[in-house]
Amino acid sequence: MASSGPCKTVLAGAIAKSLLAEVTADLKKLDNAPRLHGYLANKDPAARMYADWSAKTCRENGFDFTLHEVEREDLEDEIRHANIDDSVDGMIVYYPVFDTRRDQTLQWTVSMFKDVEGLSPQLISNMYQNIRFLDPPMNARKSILPCTPLAIIKILEYLQIYNNFLDYGKRLFGRRITVINRSEVVGRPLAALLANDGAEVYSIDVTGVQQFSRGSGLKKQKHEVRDMEGWGLEQCLPISDVVVSGVPNEAYKVPTHLVREGAVCINFSSEKNFTPDVKERAAIYVPAIGKVTILILLRNLLRLAQNRPHTNGIR
Amino acid sequence: MASSGPCKTVLAGAIAKSLLAEVTADLKKLDNAPRLHGYLANKDPAARMYADWSAKTCRENGFDFTLHEVEREDLEDEIRHANIDDSVDGMIVYYPVFDTRRDQTLQWTVSMFKDVEGLSPQLISNMYQNIRFLDPPMNARKSILPCTPLAIIKILEYLQIYNNFLDYGKRLFGRRITVINRSEVVGRPLAALLANDGAEVYSIDVTGVQQFSRGSGLKKQKHEVRDMEGWGLEQCLPISDVVVSGVPNEAYKVPTHLVREGAVCINFSSEKNFTPDVKERAAIYVPAIGKVTILILLRNLLRLAQNRPHTNGIR
Repeated sequence: MASSGPCKTVLAGAIAKSLLAEVTADLKKLDNAPRLHGYLANKDPAARMYADWSAKTCRENGFDFTLHEVEREDLEDEIRHANIDDSVDGMIVYYPVFDTRRDQTLQWTVSMFKDVEGLSPQLISNMYQNIRFLDPPMNARKSILPCTPLAIIKILEYLQIYNNFLDYGKRLFGRRITVINRSEVVGRPLAALLANDGAEVYSIDVTGVQQFSRGSGLKKQKHEVRDMEGWGLEQCLPISDVVVSGVPNEAYKVPTHLVREGAVCINFSSEKNFTPDVKERAAIYVPAIGKVTILILLRNLLRLAQNRPHTNGIR
Repeated sequence: MASSGPCKTVLAGAIAKSLLAEVTADLKKLDNAPRLHGYLANKDPAARMYADWSAKTCRENGFDFTLHEVEREDLEDEIRHANIDDSVDGMIVYYPVFDTRRDQTLQWTVSMFKDVEGLSPQLISNMYQNIRFLDPPMNARKSILPCTPLAIIKILEYLQIYNNFLDYGKRLFGRRITVINRSEVVGRPLAALLANDGAEVYSIDVTGVQQFSRGSGLKKQKHEVRDMEGWGLEQCLPISDVVVSGVPNEAYKVPTHLVREGAVCINFSSEKNFTPDVKERAAIYVPAIGKVTILILLRNLLRLAQNRPHTNGIR
């Protein structure tokens, strides 16, 4: 009996399915299937697997996908061409390409109006500033959020950690969330998004703990960050309702004994950051999120098509 | 700006309205309006006001109510008669009658099958034991819960503090709740009900703090109670997601500075237990619950009518 525990293990497939229904309903309102161009300019098997997976998911769900295998020196021109090609709704580049800072310049070449990954500088800036539309004050065109952080938010909505009774933008008020990982691609944007929605977030990496929060009474319009001197997992985990971990290291394990009873634990690393005994303490455990992330890619592509001015997605 | 705050003040009327819809729908399935007998045997103006209010609420919502004004020495016989009167579905006695221990004997005279207030010994025992039906293992006849504690639970459901994603009976897992009041009529049953649903509850009265909990991993079928030596509001409030207060004393105020940011604060005292600045810290504030409590009275009456064996509520 002791080993059964009250924990509900939730698989990403079930969550993706519920998001797919929404995406499919919106897709039907468009006259043409949104078109995604994928660019593969390396021999990395992981990149190809991701490309194949996105192709499959697009096609199975009524989106149009073309994979372009190009020489890496030609990639910037290819992107520029797609930026002005009216038949292309979105682009995804499978990194690494040069595996240097030059990859960032490539990313900046993708038009923010076709950036399905939400990594364009203007989109990133909007996210941190808690600006949710591209065209204030009209607010008809939604800003695009990066796929993995948005996937985690959609998971928290699905698990009803977002309280719909509270007003939009405040639905995590009162929640304390630990995010283990502060990468520019996932951990830091995720901490910002959660804090912008009202949570008090403890962002942890090897350099220490930072608190992301909109301050007492959510008085600030967007989150602020402060260093938590002397804090570590020992301080963060026992007071956190939610623990999100994404450490890309097989040896890394979240110490279960510090997780509070009834917490929600989500792993977004490809490694298992939680040990099986987490189910003895958590109320909900999500062991992986990949299937939700790929669904968010489709959802972002749909948003890009919906955002196209005048055309309503008609080409 | 500083004074506006993010707090949502929620009035009992709005919550009662949403419960009324459910009660009205169930009421339509019965062939006869459930009949409630009220017994008034004192000159207490508060008791008469409550009697008038219950009469009004019953009649406005399709229930049958008769007020019986009787001499207090005749009351026990009146109750015995109603216990065996097939036309009576439920009874409510407006206390105090003798204002001594004898009032408890009066309460015990009311048949558990007609006790709209859920105060019969067997019903109380079921509640503390987390037994939810009168006829296990058939489980066709629901045990009746006391009105005020159940009203507070329905309020927490309405505010989505109960997480419907979790399984029934575990929907408060991970929540910490402070209940200030440990009366036999409200505070103690409330603490037990919340703990039985998975919460860790801190029950506070002048004698100190008790923790009500189903233990690590909710391994126990029903809550257990332990004294928290040296604990006080200072320890309980800063870690509580929900604060429920019902101190019948005008001078008593919950110290706002100890309430955690984003908490849910509910007052069930007729006095104001929270000061206005609670809105600077709380996510949700419910200043009074009376209108929900009276709706629960109707809901309990409906349950009693539904519970009648064979007749399906037909007389």
